[in-house]
Amino acid sequence: MDVRAAKPPLTPALTPVMGADEVNAYLMEVYPQLNTDYTEYRAVEVWPGGCRVRLTAGERHLRPGGTVSGPALFTLADIGGYVCALSHIGRKALAVTTNLNINFMRKAQAGDIDGVCRILKLGKALMVFDVAIVAGEAQEMVAHATGTYSIPPARK
Amino acid sequence: MDVRAAKPPLTPALTPVMGADEVNAYLMEVYPQLNTDYTEYRAVEVWPGGCRVRLTAGERHLRPGGTVSGPALFTLADIGGYVCALSHIGRKALAVTTNLNINFMRKAQAGDIDGVCRILKLGKALMVFDVAIVAGEAQEMVAHATGTYSIPPARK
Amino acid sequence: MDVRAAKPPLTPALTPVMGADEVNAYLMEVYPQLNTDYTEYRAVEVWPGGCRVRLTAGERHLRPGGTVSGPALFTLADIGGYVCALSHIGRKALAVTTNLNINFMRKAQAGDIDGVCRILKLGKALMVFDVAIVAGEAQEMVAHATGTYSIPPARK
Amino acid sequence: MDVRAAKPPLTPALTPVMGADEVNAYLMEVYPQLNTDYTEYRAVEVWPGGCRVRLTAGERHLRPGGTVSGPALFTLADIGGYVCALSHIGRKALAVTTNLNINFMRKAQAGDIDGVCRILKLGKALMVFDVAIVAGEAQEMVAHATGTYSIPPARK
Repeated sequence: MDVRAAKPPLTPALTPVMGADEVNAYLMEVYPQLNTDYTEYRAVEVWPGGCRVRLTAGERHLRPGGTVSGPALFTLADIGGYVCALSHIGRKALAVTTNLNINFMRKAQAGDIDGVCRILKLGKALMVFDVAIVAGEAQEMVAHATGTYSIPPARK
Repeated sequence: MDVRAAKPPLTPALTPVMGADEVNAYLMEVYPQLNTDYTEYRAVEVWPGGCRVRLTAGERHLRPGGTVSGPALFTLADIGGYVCALSHIGRKALAVTTNLNINFMRKAQAGDIDGVCRILKLGKALMVFDVAIVAGEAQEMVAHATGTYSIPPARK
Repeated sequence: MDVRAAKPPLTPALTPVMGADEVNAYLMEVYPQLNTDYTEYRAVEVWPGGCRVRLTAGERHLRPGGTVSGPALFTLADIGGYVCALSHIGRKALAVTTNLNINFMRKAQAGDIDGVCRILKLGKALMVFDVAIVAGEAQEMVAHATGTYSIPPARK
Repeated sequence: MDVRAAKPPLTPALTPVMGADEVNAYLMEVYPQLNTDYTEYRAVEVWPGGCRVRLTAGERHLRPGGTVSGPALFTLADIGGYVCALSHIGRKALAVTTNLNINFMRKAQAGDIDGVCRILKLGKALMVFDVAIVAGEAQEMVAHATGTYSIPPARK
């Protein structure tokens, strides 16, 4: 196993306010377009300062060459950031990505693809995160993304 | 109209080898997953050193807040780079994105969203491109992406 | 000449509040470390929605291979964003870069290297910009950067 | 201490061919511009699949606000990638950065600033890496970068 794929250390200074099931229920409610017929993108685990999200990639997620497409991996990374934000700041559906940079490194076959996400900074207005996307038995890193979410101000 | 959305100047040193219709037919053949029931992502125009691609965004492309989702815009940018590559180097379905960086700047409503793409460098192994994503009557820039495609070596 | 290097169209909606000379004097005052012995990085022109900055690259800016180093080009791109911000929002020395993505495409020789900068979005809290870095007689694009500046809130 | 700053796990599949001292001597030889009067940017440690580099930031590296400048942190990240490449593939001075994306998250004071670098992919033509830039007693992450180096082909 590629040791880089291990769960990153906890960041005790950050405390989740929702677990994976609660986030998935909230996603279903506010973002029904994400998973139409059955659940494809979902939160698997939430911990202080991070989370794991999963895409079960099928035929529809493949691109020429029979490997998982860039947009499918981008969506997983983006959802990873969204789950980081929602799980740590609460039901702020209107949090939006302002920047996302992704490197594609290896080809991924259909099957479970995981995004192991870390919150690098959680400020009042912006959250910075990164995602190691891993796949296959060896949990090799197939892509890596870094991004920023803009957090809507609290209603007063 | 936002003047930044205008078609960029031609780069006469680069010569397309396929037009928009030919690229669309090729995409349909090698990448059927891109457009399942009807055509959503397509090439609209190809010129020396660039191209215009279009997403006709509907309900299924929206995210919380009722605006076009990040993954839908990312897909448009990625297809823009793919169309740049295919139209200028020919039928290389296995060209793959190695890096893509995208900034989301304004909210886009459902409707036609265009990606105006420039080839910044066309080398033997890598192509660098950028995409101005514009939408609405004013053709305002809603997102901007820069990326790299890896070009497979010619068979010998 | 590579036509992509031409000055981008004006963005009439944006109005500069300082010209190049005024920005250079302000940079000298608040950021003396930028140019120690003589002026290397400077604003050359400011227009609605953009600016041109210049590095006169000498021996000290070269890297192995005798070409202008990545950090020197990054600095030019970063200063380009800073000049965009200062010239359009005024004397906000504490505006800071939050993200910068740069692609290096061609080798640049010592001499004048220009950054042609566009403001892509000027919001209350964030400014997004891009920079085409051009060099040589042909004004070929040697690098391209996109970035975000965080704008400090107005004092009340 | 921020646990994210800990040395990442080893990647046994990658084997360094040079240690930190050897890399520093090579940098001095091929890239004298990096450190003019005294050593500012240097390799501190090399391990399988990664390395630690250090900038001892002084007055000259500060920007308005008295914090370490973006270009100084970019240079550290870029050198981190260069040290990753040189230490794992040998004396290839002409390895060049093709892309670098950096997020600035917290302000860093003058003093030792470390870049903890991981090789994410080491291919024949490209190396992808990331760098956690940490500073202060708490070794907090002040910036994070991801980049790609192009590796020159072996002479035949």
